[in-house]
Parts: sequence; structure tokens; C-alpha cells
Amino acid sequence: MDVVFRNVRYPDFESGRMAFGHVGIQGNRIAAVGKASLPAAHVIEGSGRLLTPGLMDAHVHIESSLLTPARFGQAVAREGTLLAVADCHEIANVAGLAGLQWFMDDADAAPMDIRFAVPSCVPASPFGTSGGSLGLKEIQQLLSDPRVVALGEVMNIPAVLNRDPVVLAMIDAARTRGKVVNGHAPGLSGVNLARYHAAGIDDDHETGDVSGLQERLDAGMHVFIRQGSAERSDPEAYRLLASYPDRILFCTDDRSLCDIRQDGHLQPHLRLATEQGVNPVHILQAACLNGPRYYGIQDTGAIRVGFRADLVLFDGPDRWQVDLVMVGGQVLSYSDDLCHHPSPDFLKQSFRLPPDWSIPQIPQAVRHLAIGVTDGSLVTDRLAVDAALPTVHLQRDLLKLVVLERYGHGHAAACRVHGFGLKRGALASSVAHDCHNIVAVGVCDEAIRRAVQALLDHGGGLSVVDGTDSWVVPLPVGGIVSDDPPEPLAAALMNLSERTHRLGSCLRNPHATLSFMALEVIPHLKLTDRGLFDVDAFDWVGVHEKSPRMRAQTNAIQDDEA
Amino acid sequence: MDVVFRNVRYPDFESGRMAFGHVGIQGNRIAAVGKASLPAAHVIEGSGRLLTPGLMDAHVHIESSLLTPARFGQAVAREGTLLAVADCHEIANVAGLAGLQWFMDDADAAPMDIRFAVPSCVPASPFGTSGGSLGLKEIQQLLSDPRVVALGEVMNIPAVLNRDPVVLAMIDAARTRGKVVNGHAPGLSGVNLARYHAAGIDDDHETGDVSGLQERLDAGMHVFIRQGSAERSDPEAYRLLASYPDRILFCTDDRSLCDIRQDGHLQPHLRLATEQGVNPVHILQAACLNGPRYYGIQDTGAIRVGFRADLVLFDGPDRWQVDLVMVGGQVLSYSDDLCHHPSPDFLKQSFRLPPDWSIPQIPQAVRHLAIGVTDGSLVTDRLAVDAALPTVHLQRDLLKLVVLERYGHGHAAACRVHGFGLKRGALASSVAHDCHNIVAVGVCDEAIRRAVQALLDHGGGLSVVDGTDSWVVPLPVGGIVSDDPPEPLAAALMNLSERTHRLGSCLRNPHATLSFMALEVIPHLKLTDRGLFDVDAFDWVGVHEKSPRMRAQTNAIQDDEA
Repeated sequence: MDVVFRNVRYPDFESGRMAFGHVGIQGNRIAAVGKASLPAAHVIEGSGRLLTPGLMDAHVHIESSLLTPARFGQAVAREGTLLAVADCHEIANVAGLAGLQWFMDDADAAPMDIRFAVPSCVPASPFGTSGGSLGLKEIQQLLSDPRVVALGEVMNIPAVLNRDPVVLAMIDAARTRGKVVNGHAPGLSGVNLARYHAAGIDDDHETGDVSGLQERLDAGMHVFIRQGSAERSDPEAYRLLASYPDRILFCTDDRSLCDIRQDGHLQPHLRLATEQGVNPVHILQAACLNGPRYYGIQDTGAIRVGFRADLVLFDGPDRWQVDLVMVGGQVLSYSDDLCHHPSPDFLKQSFRLPPDWSIPQIPQAVRHLAIGVTDGSLVTDRLAVDAALPTVHLQRDLLKLVVLERYGHGHAAACRVHGFGLKRGALASSVAHDCHNIVAVGVCDEAIRRAVQALLDHGGGLSVVDGTDSWVVPLPVGGIVSDDPPEPLAAALMNLSERTHRLGSCLRNPHATLSFMALEVIPHLKLTDRGLFDVDAFDWVGVHEKSPRMRAQTNAIQDDEA
Repeated sequence: MDVVFRNVRYPDFESGRMAFGHVGIQGNRIAAVGKASLPAAHVIEGSGRLLTPGLMDAHVHIESSLLTPARFGQAVAREGTLLAVADCHEIANVAGLAGLQWFMDDADAAPMDIRFAVPSCVPASPFGTSGGSLGLKEIQQLLSDPRVVALGEVMNIPAVLNRDPVVLAMIDAARTRGKVVNGHAPGLSGVNLARYHAAGIDDDHETGDVSGLQERLDAGMHVFIRQGSAERSDPEAYRLLASYPDRILFCTDDRSLCDIRQDGHLQPHLRLATEQGVNPVHILQAACLNGPRYYGIQDTGAIRVGFRADLVLFDGPDRWQVDLVMVGGQVLSYSDDLCHHPSPDFLKQSFRLPPDWSIPQIPQAVRHLAIGVTDGSLVTDRLAVDAALPTVHLQRDLLKLVVLERYGHGHAAACRVHGFGLKRGALASSVAHDCHNIVAVGVCDEAIRRAVQALLDHGGGLSVVDGTDSWVVPLPVGGIVSDDPPEPLAAALMNLSERTHRLGSCLRNPHATLSFMALEVIPHLKLTDRGLFDVDAFDWVGVHEKSPRMRAQTNAIQDDEA
């Protein structure tokens, strides 16, 4: 044997018990498991500590970490996550098929195994302007790639229930290739849930309450319990593992780099489940084995002869502190070095604003409205305000919000916003779901302009302007992620947060709130690059051009003919 | 729903119980399972009968049925086998990569799902002359094909135990692609079994005794219980399912068309396990679910929403009589029609004998030996005979055995054989494992010549000569299989068998025995196209040319440099 872990506890998922013994590694695989003593070139003394397979994140949007896939891998592998299914719909919105393919290639350099789910809804709607889109043809092509294990969360529930042929064709393309179709079924129940399930969609990660999870499990579906930065499942959900040890998986969905650095990546799952008194073998089955089984990844997820030597040595099943990580038979080192290719020019130079770009004025037709933001919620309010008030009114916390389209069409829009609480300066971000145009908020046009310019000077990112000073965290890859090592990026983000809070905002994370101001599929009032958008009416406020809904229909017809 | 099976029993593998209710089908998938009544366009009344997923053959050499893959599918789908992993090493020996790829394409037309294991030992040795070979490069290429789920049985055990780099590279190529490596570990035990397993080989189908199976299961391996035409596992093996319901699969390995027609394909497994008192849910888990799970075929093997509607309706779990088969949501019809491509010329014209071919004489150096055959065994005896006796001596049952190489090299060889018991005429076959040269046995050169000529006139097959009459079952695809429908082919084989037995042979299946006379890797004495071969010495009897062992080593060195 090349390496032997001696005297370790390890989960035996077949018997459902914690076993004790030695685990031998040869090359990149487990070559012996049991009580027989093994000669070895290198011995790691376990002293009764817990050896587990690598943890798996069953559904993650890597871009939420603000890192490229390889760098994301560095950040989470040291936390014990050695397998993930990534739905990279943000880079697909920015740069389409080519961007997604570069992400898939970049993931090769990660010190972990990253598989992919093909985003099924790019762009999210025809009302914003994105840089890329994925049609049925691109989706079919991607589903044939061996790194792809799933069709990504099918968010268009009405299309599934109405048996829309394009969505059914996407699902069929995945199923005929033996691949999973990820669900997204918040609030679905009864006959509609059964119809959604029967269409070939077998999992859900949007349901966090115990009764919703129970209904899905009873129907035979898989469920992913989620602990992200924003969305968190009910901790009592882990108790369902006693009845359904085979069909519960763990995911983060969206988790920020700062949260990963502070509380680990999948550690919140392990700790919360332990607090609920769940059998540690069941916890580890959900964390390690159920995911590979569900996605058809054959040779990992258990301490078994022939399985990959992707292993984590924990201090024990109480604190879940990682003592050592082994990837492919090699002990993981925590250096910043990474053997990866530089990101290509089309991702590094992804901003195409007009040379004479400027901060747009707020049209008279929308001056009577303001977007109302609430800390910690993606849902905004539609606030009525006095149109005659000055555009910016600090006492009333009315600021100017701007979206600048960045894919070469020259669109720009502005409106009023309430709730950011800035007393001076401005913030800008090229992370703006899902289209990732530039969104900025500030107390005056000049501060906003400088915040946007600072961001453009670095090829995208997050910026703060305070008086004559400005700070930027560059996110030069597609304007949404960085290929810097996780440690310095985390430090830069902490510093930016500090600078942001000095402007007087009472929000917990003003840049995160800002990044959802343009997301036109979440209620109630949003600002896209083409104007103020009423999500409930699913149309613009104060029509100022040919309705994009009409145009969307025209496009759809043209697509059919193409 | 398009179709509903009403009032059926069906296995629920999660609870380990037999359930009762209705199963709804929409399109090609299961869309509802349970007690709720379902509206349907078409109802199949179950009346309490047993609905199961399609059965799976975990390891089969399709060529043993003498049928092309599409026709094999026709023969076994009606018996309820709807998934198989085929290791087509016979066609690979005849026609290499191109032959194997045509087989894979032909399988598309089968009314069932045929996946492939890449043969790992083609040719079996350097001592016979084959038409094709698969090197590391071809194997790596094939392993990337999505229809391939495994590296085929690794028969070269010494190479695995000695960590031969080429064999390890084949195994690694499979494992890194997440594919299974099939084993072949007859008689292996203890530390050698552990080393074979640790090399990444996780299953065995060559072990049929309970203690050998138990040792493999205890070590964490998967085992395939086998009921072929020749090799049959101990019926008590099924009792192991009570302790290991997850890691036992069923296979046939080699099963003749006549046996399939007479006793079904996987039915012997179901019946023998039932006779042993095994829980029918465990029997079905082994027959239906464990295989897809092991090979990573995601959406079949259970009665589950979203799974493929590949289903079998049995009369019950006692007789296991098939009442109805559904494939992809369609009830299987039993017509001979098949929408498949004709086999290509390179497979239909695969015989390249010299124009002046003739029946070779027996060299003086081997006249003192005869191959001794025993009914039902592939192992032959090395018999000493009086060299001065006439070549053919019917009273002593000494006949002439001939091998004619057919791939254009002009080799031919002859020797004496004891045990066929022919009193007149001759038999010939172009099915002759593993190289599939022409092998013939007879009472005189003229009868042998006519038997061979009859076979050549039909592009290969099995022939009988009796006086001036001759009969042939043509196997025109590569000279080893037929693309005729199963029914008439089975009738022709029965007729040929009848004609063969009239020649006086006491063997149960003389053509089957004949087909193993040239297989130089099974003890003790065999005849290849280049002479009489002593398997125990692993060399020729009476060396008549430069030792092929030397040549093999030279080739190996050249391969390394290439």
C-alpha cells in the first residue's frame, strides 16, 4: 500500500454501522478496508478519528462564491467537499455556450471533481438583455458531454405542467442520455407536484419545510436539504433521514466565499443534523453516497475497495472539524498554487458600453414609484412617492438606481430606490442576476458614474465610491468571478464590505442586495436595462418602446422556423 | 395516462415488500405508481398478477446465441430480458474494432437496451491467428462511447497480479471514465483475490460455488450468479440474497438459442431462486435493479415514477411465465419484423482461404497424440496413441481434426481426435473460439473437404456431410452469427442437430464441442491453425516454426515504443 489510515472509524453504509479498522490506498484508489494490518510506505495514524468519503454538494451555483471553478474547488476542497454538481447559469447568461465550456474546462484544474448540470433557463426571461442564451440545440449538445450529469433546475413550472414541447424535449434529451433532471418546485403540492414529477423531474431543493419535504419523499422523489448563504432549510428536516436514508442529499445552492471561509462549505449540514440527533452514518450517507448514486457517478462516495481515494479525516462526528483531506490518493496541500489556464480574452473583455456612456435620467413616467428593498429578501416593494420630490432625498432614503446594459446594445435605465440608506457616495456591481448588466446606486450622478468607471477599469467587479476615494474588488472573468486565490479575494471582500458600511447603509450586505435589483422574475418591482419592470403585471411601467413581450413572441416564432 | 396496469402486484425495493396497486405509463416512462385510480386511454387489467421491471443479463456473449445483437434482442425481449451488458469478444476476434462497432450499431434495432463491455483480451493469446485485435488505444476509444458501461472480463489474472502496465492502463481507462471493470476470477482466493480486487476489478461471474461466492461478497465485491448453457452456478447460491440483496446480479454468460427457446433466458434464475425459498422481492432486486445500479444505468430497474416503462407482466412469482412485455411504453409484439440495417460486406465476406486450399495432412511429429474430448467439458485430454495406426480408426474412435485459418495467411493444421464417435461423414464449423477459423472433424478428407466447402458456400456457419448429402446452417455475419429471425434459425439448428446425431456421435452437441477444439487457452491439448498446442507447456507440440512466444515478446516491445 502507498498510504494506510490506521485505526480509523469509517461509515459502512451497507450495514448502516460505524466500523473500525484500517484503510489502505494504492495509487488513487482504496485498495483495502478492514481489520487486517497492512504494510505501507506511509502511515497516517487515525487514533480513532473519523475517516469519511469526500462530501458532495448536490447543487451549487459556483458563481455565487465569486470564484472561477478551479478557485472554487480550492476554497471548498479544504473543507472536505470533493464532489459537486454545478449549475453555472450565471456565466451562461454572460457568455453563453462558450463561457460555460470554458468553466467546464477550468474545473479540470480544481482539486476536486466538479460535474455539471446544463442550465435550462438562459436567459431567465425576454425582459432583460443577457450576453448569452442556451437553446434546445446547445442544451442537447451539452447533455452529451460526459462531464454533464444533469439538466439543471427546471424553473419554468407552468411550461412543464402545460407540457410545453421545448421543455419536454429538454427533459427527454437528458433522460434518454441516462441523466438526471433537477427540479425547482417551491410550493408545488398535490396533483401539480405529481404532474411535475411524472414529467421526469425527480428532485427538489427549493422546499425547506418538513411537510413539503415529506410529501416529496412519499411520492418517491429525491430531496436536497439546503444550507446556502440566503436560503436555509428547517433543521428538523434532517430527522427525515431516519425514514429515507437513500433519497436525501445535501446542497448549498448559493454560498458566499465569506460564509465558506467562516463556517465551512457543507459543515452546517453535518453540524445541524448532529444537533438533531441523527445517526452519523445516515448523515454521511446523505453527504457522501446518495449524491454519486443519484447522479450515476460510480466509483466514489463510500469507503470501498476500488473506489477513489477522495477522503476526509475528521476529528469526530460532533465538531466535524477537518484534520486532513486526501484527493486521488494525495494529501491536499493548502497552497494558493493552481495549475490552470488563464481565462480567455472573450471573458476578460466582456464590457461593451458606448464610448460616450452616461448616467441616464429617470423618466417622468416612473418618478412616482420607487423600488423598496428589505434586508435579507429578494422580494421588493412597489412604493408610491411624490414625483415632485428631488430625485435623491437622503432624509427619506430615496436614492438613484441605475442599470447600464453591457453587451453592446447601449440600453440604460434609471429609477428611484428606497432602503439602501446610503448617506454619501455610491456602489456599483457587474454581478446583477441573471443578465449581469451593471447596476449602481448612489447619492448623485457623479458618484455613480465614478463607481461604474472604477468597475469598468478593472473589467468588472464590485466597487465603492466615498468622496474622492474608490475601492474595487475586481471580478474580471465575465465581470462576475475572479481567478484570484480564495484567501486574498476573501480579504478584499471583507475590506470592501467595511468601506461600504461606512457610507451609512444599514443593510447587512448592500452589494448582495444591489445584485438582485435587476432580476425581473422575482416580485414586485425591478429595474432592467430597458426600464422599470412590474413583475406582477409582467410588463414595463410606462411603456417606452415596443413591448418586449410582443418581441419575445416574434422571436419564438422565428426560432421555430429556424 | 396512456396506459394503466390496474391491480398489479409489484416489487417495492425500498421497503423490501411486494406492493399492490396501479402503475400508469405516459409516453415511454412510468408516470404514476400507487393506489390512486388513474384515468387512462388503455387499461391492462392485472388481476393480481406480478408487474416487474425488465430483467437484466449482467454479462453475456451475444454471439453464443448465433444471432446478431438486434436478433438476440428479439429472442430474449419476449422472455422479459430488457437490458443486457454484452461482451462481444467473438466478433472482435473476427473483425476487430470495425466488427464490434457494427455490432454496437446493430444493437440499436433491438427491442431492448443492450450496453457493451469492451473485450479486454482480443486475441486470447498470440498462438492462434485471429482476424482482429483490440489494443490499448482501441480499448480507450471504445471506453469513451456512451453505450459502453464496462471493461470486459479481465481474464489475464497473472498480468493483474504482476501489475502489468498495459492491463493496469486498461483498468485505469475504465475507472477514470466512471465505468465498471468486469472480473473473471475462477478459483482465486485469499491474498490473490484481494490483490485482484484492489486492482479495481469489483465483480466475478466465474465462481459458482457458495463458499467462493461468500468470500467475494464478504470482501465487498459484486458477484454474478450464472445460468448459461454450459456453466451453471450452485442453486444454493441464491440463498446468499438474504444477506447480500444489493450485490448479487444474474447473468447467462453463454446461452444457446435452443436453450433460450426452451427454458427462457433469465427464467432459470427466477425459478431456481424461488425453489430455494428466496424472497421474491430479493430475487427481482437481483434480476432487475442491482445491474442498472452497478453499471450506472440511471433510469431503469424499478417501478418508479420517471423510470423507463420497460416492464414485464408475469403470471406470478412461482412459474414466472411471461404474459406481456412492455418496452418504452409499447407492448412488445412477437413478429419477426425488425427495422435494422443489413450487415456490411466486410462482415458478410470474411473468408479469405487460398484458391487452392486443401485438407492438410497430420505431421509425423504429432501422430502419436490425439486430443481426447469429454462430453460437456471444455477441457481436453492429451491421449497417447500408436503412431503407426491408420489416421482414422473408427473402432478406436480416432478421427481427423482440421483447422483452416481463414484470414488470408494460408495456415492449416491437422491432428487426431478421440471422442466424437462419428461413424461416417464430417462436421465443420466457422464458430471456433476465440479466433473463429474453420474447424472440422470427419472420417475422411473428402467428407471434411465437402463439409468445409458447404460452409464456405454460405459465408460461414455450421455444416454436416452425410454421404452425398450436406446440410448447412448459414452464419453469414462474420461467419459466426446470423441475422435471420430467431424462430427459423432455431428450427434450422434443431434440424442440423438431428442430422448430426444420425452420424453416430454420442456427444450431446457435437458442433458445440467442435467449436472449442481450437481454443488454446483451455487445457490440455488443442489444435490451432498453426499446429497442435500443448496448453500446459504453453507451446507447440513438435516445434515447426519460430516460437510465437518469442514473437509475442518482440511485439510487446514494439508496442511500447509505438
